[in-house]
Amino acid sequence: MPCHLRTSTDDSAVMGAERIAVVVRPARREDVAAIVRLLADDVLGAARERVEDPVAPVYLRAFDDMAAQPGNQLLVAERDGDVIGCLQLTILTGLSRQGMRRALLEAVRVSARHRGARVGEQLVLEAIAQARVAGCGLVQLTSDATRVDAQRFYERLGFEKTHVGMKKSITEQP
Amino acid sequence: MPCHLRTSTDDSAVMGAERIAVVVRPARREDVAAIVRLLADDVLGAARERVEDPVAPVYLRAFDDMAAQPGNQLLVAERDGDVIGCLQLTILTGLSRQGMRRALLEAVRVSARHRGARVGEQLVLEAIAQARVAGCGLVQLTSDATRVDAQRFYERLGFEKTHVGMKKSITEQP
Repeated sequence: MPCHLRTSTDDSAVMGAERIAVVVRPARREDVAAIVRLLADDVLGAARERVEDPVAPVYLRAFDDMAAQPGNQLLVAERDGDVIGCLQLTILTGLSRQGMRRALLEAVRVSARHRGARVGEQLVLEAIAQARVAGCGLVQLTSDATRVDAQRFYERLGFEKTHVGMKKSITEQP
Repeated sequence: MPCHLRTSTDDSAVMGAERIAVVVRPARREDVAAIVRLLADDVLGAARERVEDPVAPVYLRAFDDMAAQPGNQLLVAERDGDVIGCLQLTILTGLSRQGMRRALLEAVRVSARHRGARVGEQLVLEAIAQARVAGCGLVQLTSDATRVDAQRFYERLGFEKTHVGMKKSITEQP
């Protein structure tokens, strides 16, 4: 599922390995359609998402639910008015590790045409900065076992593969 | 770090592999001391937690923070008035997978003297039931790579090791 983003005047530069500067900011409701395209612009996401115009209401409802949950937010990477990356940051309180807060990263995506330009790095570093401000001592994520490149990316940013990520679908009845 | 729980009259039974029935209920503020003992009663937790009497204020603050975050709660397993197990359940909204909600499990612990009696199973099944009611399509967790027994336990309950869990400590300054 390709990501039909508006092209900018210097696409040749963004296709290479050069870093392109982005503005990382909280997502707004009008970004939801672009975020859904990012989620679908992915080997695993293509089969999981619904790209429709206008955006499927289920995504707008989810956005409103997120906005109502304190500590749960979407960040987007914007360049020349286009949303070219996204990341979900959740701040979790808990008792373990002496009441340490932790930040959870989910749904980290960069548009296919802007990969390799350190957009993801800027998103993750901003999320880490916000996690520090929120008093977190740890940032955690799970990466599908098949996403070897993603894991290498996170290792470069100081993440360690210390855990096994386990999931159970509960969409069927018990 | 041993867990000094009040003993009951049939300890011989609970030391074996027999299932003991527990009441799984939301944690109350007066359970925090017992929960901290559970968190410390663990190979990895022993070095991470502070067991003090009265309970260290940092844990009570964390409990109050959790109580203030909708969708984030602690469940405990109670038997004869004693808290012998705990689990943190967080319901997360997000855009990916068509706005699917997911449940995150953290801090699943059972007192050393009650392990093998399916207390953890009762906690996890209750968490899954609550996740379904909250509209979740997925339950996820990370397990330290060294916790092989825990992973076998989750596999028996239908969890699959599909992901790599990555963590980055951010307690130091950048």
